[in-house]
This record gives sequence, structure tokens and C-alpha cells, in this order.
Amino acid sequence: MDARAETRLYVEEPLAEGAAVGLDAERSHYLRTVLRLERGAQVALFNGRDGEWLARIDAIGKGWCSLAVLRRTRAQEPHPDLWLLFAPIKRARIDTVAEKASELGCSVIWPVLTRHTDVARVNLDRLRANAVEAAEQCERLSVPELREPERLDRVLAAWPAGRHLLLCAEAGNATPVAEAAARLRGAPAAVLVGPEGGFAQDELDGLRALPFVVPVGLGPRVLRADTAAIAALACWQALAGDWTTGGADERPPFRSSEQM
Amino acid sequence: MDARAETRLYVEEPLAEGAAVGLDAERSHYLRTVLRLERGAQVALFNGRDGEWLARIDAIGKGWCSLAVLRRTRAQEPHPDLWLLFAPIKRARIDTVAEKASELGCSVIWPVLTRHTDVARVNLDRLRANAVEAAEQCERLSVPELREPERLDRVLAAWPAGRHLLLCAEAGNATPVAEAAARLRGAPAAVLVGPEGGFAQDELDGLRALPFVVPVGLGPRVLRADTAAIAALACWQALAGDWTTGGADERPPFRSSEQM
Repeated sequence: MDARAETRLYVEEPLAEGAAVGLDAERSHYLRTVLRLERGAQVALFNGRDGEWLARIDAIGKGWCSLAVLRRTRAQEPHPDLWLLFAPIKRARIDTVAEKASELGCSVIWPVLTRHTDVARVNLDRLRANAVEAAEQCERLSVPELREPERLDRVLAAWPAGRHLLLCAEAGNATPVAEAAARLRGAPAAVLVGPEGGFAQDELDGLRALPFVVPVGLGPRVLRADTAAIAALACWQALAGDWTTGGADERPPFRSSEQM
Repeated sequence: MDARAETRLYVEEPLAEGAAVGLDAERSHYLRTVLRLERGAQVALFNGRDGEWLARIDAIGKGWCSLAVLRRTRAQEPHPDLWLLFAPIKRARIDTVAEKASELGCSVIWPVLTRHTDVARVNLDRLRANAVEAAEQCERLSVPELREPERLDRVLAAWPAGRHLLLCAEAGNATPVAEAAARLRGAPAAVLVGPEGGFAQDELDGLRALPFVVPVGLGPRVLRADTAAIAALACWQALAGDWTTGGADERPPFRSSEQM
């Protein structure tokens, strides 16, 4: 059984042997009151830069906590370079999207405003908290960046060179997502999912005219926006990302002849 | 713009020109009070056998509704033969699993009881309702069959010949899911997802010893059970199911040279 600490926390401070990290009131409360951890208990820390480190609670009180950083347990690894752009949807579903985009290894989660977006305001702090919690639980070594909502046309006008944009296409010509993802393997990518009402026709025409946009098909059924997002991200990771090698602990895969 | 009716309903009655279909109180209420449909309004009906048919509300009242079946709009098609077996999880997440398994084209959704399953009772009626509603909205021509919860060992002991079982493997040797799905293309399949606490070691050993079980890897991050289910189903559909041909309206895909 792994001796790794069960509680993983994302922090922003540098992590190095002998460093000290202080937690804010909310997180201290979480450790002390919810998890009932005491002085001496071990937690794992990561900050997206320095890998994962074992740390020990040096002192903990009402609304504060001081951690001593002990030793590194995992080296920092790069994550596949995958963004999710999506038109905001209603609360329960958008929380799920943030959580699952984090589990599925997204580096950027970006709400984009389209003609038929029917949710005007996005609670970015809450989405960020969902994404961080999911990152802690899924054992990744970074957290997604939650970007301020932006109009789709402005996002596209400033699109970084070299990044493909997989457009989850409700209708019209599209490459099956598995085929597109396999072709894009190794290159930075983004997935774009429209609102439940779909993109406006001129938005679609504009998107299809852009050289970095790849319309992808997600089968013959009409998927909800959150389903499309999760499915497209999973397919990209499975074919072009870090699911392509081995299993959860990265030992070599079974040979198929032994299995079937 | 498509003249197809916007409201789709799953019914069990046979569908044929000139047939009459009566709706139960709950559905009549839904049409009359929620959707505010009146006599003469058109809806689409499907029953999993006869395709999709246009129907007209002949009469509607408090707690009842009579529909006249007019003409067939879509022929029945077979669905990819894909089952989801999963250990029950908490309510909000299990409802999402039923909904998305339906959108992702599952023909069977089957709660299985494992050693560490922490949800004792499953509200099958509610799950079935979620699955049916999702089937209506995603425009598929059938609804998943929701099976009574069963112990995993009994499910495995009665496993139908010819069907592969993709085991979402938290650890240990596993074939990357995309590779496994591509190899299984065209064959009946099932996805098995364990509880949040994972399978017991002897359950895993037993599973891995079975010739029809294929452990599949879903990357280096630890996915929640509902995330794993949706991701595995999506990957199977994308590589072995009905996502492999064209886009939403099944026109031929873009040639890649035109696109990138």
C-alpha cells in the first residue's frame, strides 16, 4: 500500500525541502474541522511548478495552519496542452464541466460568450474552486487556469498560432472526432462547445472559415453541451494526449494475444 | 429548417399509419401544462422498434391525451451494442450517469453491486426516467434497458458469450482505451466501472482472470466513477461505435487537406 499522503492540496507557494507553507482560513478549517487532521499529520502539496511534496502539519489552529515541507515525492511533468472553450450553461452542469475538464487534464478552461449563450454571468471563483478540488483528487500536478469569460469573436481574433480548435459540430461536415484527434497528436489543441441553443449560423460560418478550426463529429445523437465537452476531451486525451501510454500506473499494456 | 416536431416521446405502443396512442396522466400533464400543447400540435414518437413517427394531438385534457399517428419520419436503425455496468454512486452523479449513458447510445444500463459499493439502494424508476428523457432529447430511436441491480459475481457467472467487458482499471496492467476499443470494433461490448472506493483486490483478480475481460487504461489521472463511465463510453463509440462515420447529419467528412 502506498505511503503517500491521502490529502492533496494545491498551493501557490514555492515548494522545497525545509520550506514552510501557511494555509488560509478556509483551507485550515477544512483540514482541522472536516478532515480532523492534527499536528504531525501528513499531506501532499503541489503548485504546478515544483512537483508533488510531502508536508507535515507543524501547527494548526482555528483559521490557520502551518506546514513544513519535507521531501519531493513526484517530479513535475508537463501536461498535455489542451484547452476547453465552452459557452456557459446552467449551474449544476457548468460545475460538472469544470470538474471533469480538470480531471481530463485541461490546462485552460475558458467560458466564451456566443450569440445564444443563455447564462449571462459566470461565477469564476466557484468554477475555479471546483477545478482545483478535482485536480487535487485526481492526482494531477497542476490546476487548470480559469480565464475570464470573453466574447467568441475576440477569442478567435487573438487565437495563438499553432493551436488547433476542435469545433464540436452539431451539424454539417465534420471529421469523426477520433480521426481528427489521432491526426492532431502532439500538437496543442482546444475543444470548443457551443451553448445548448447551438451556435448562430454566422458564427458557424465564421468558425468554419478559419484555418485552425477543425469541425469534429460526435456521432449521430444530439449531445448536451456538457456531454459533448467531456466526450471530446476524453477522446482527445485517449488519442492525442496522455492516455495513449499504459494504464494508471504506467506499466506497459497487456499484449492483446494474452487477453482475448 | 427541419419540419420535424420538436417534442419527442418514447412510447411502448406499436406505431403505424392511422394508429392511435394514448398517453398516461404524467405525460399528458407534461404536454398540456408544461409544454402548453393543444389539439392539432405535432409531436414525434418512437418505440425502439418501428422508427420515428409524426403524430398529432387529437384531443387533450386533464390527465389524458390521444395522439393520431400520421407518418413515419425515420426508419428504425440498429444501435451499437454497448452496455454500461457500474457500481451505484450517490444520487446527483448516478442521475448524470444514466442520462449520459443514454446520450452515448448504451442499450443496457446495469447497476452492479461490488464489495465497496457504498450506495445500497438504487431508484431504478428514477434512473429509467432520466435515461428515457435523455433518449428523447438526443434523438435516438430507442431507450436503454435499465436492469435490476445485481451482484457482480452473478453478473460475471452468467456473462453472454461473445461480449467483451472493458474494465476501467484504476491500477495495474491495462491497454490504453483507444487501442482496446479500436481492436474490438464491431463486436458487442460492455464497460464496467467500479465504485469510488475501487474494486476489492480479489474482485480485480477474479475479473482479470476472465477471458472476456479487457482492462483498459484511462490515463494517469484518477477519474471519478462517473467521469470514467462517460469517458470510456465516449471512447468506445468514437473508435468502435457509431461515431466513426461522418458528422451529425452523416454527410461525408471534410478532407483533411482542405482543413489544415
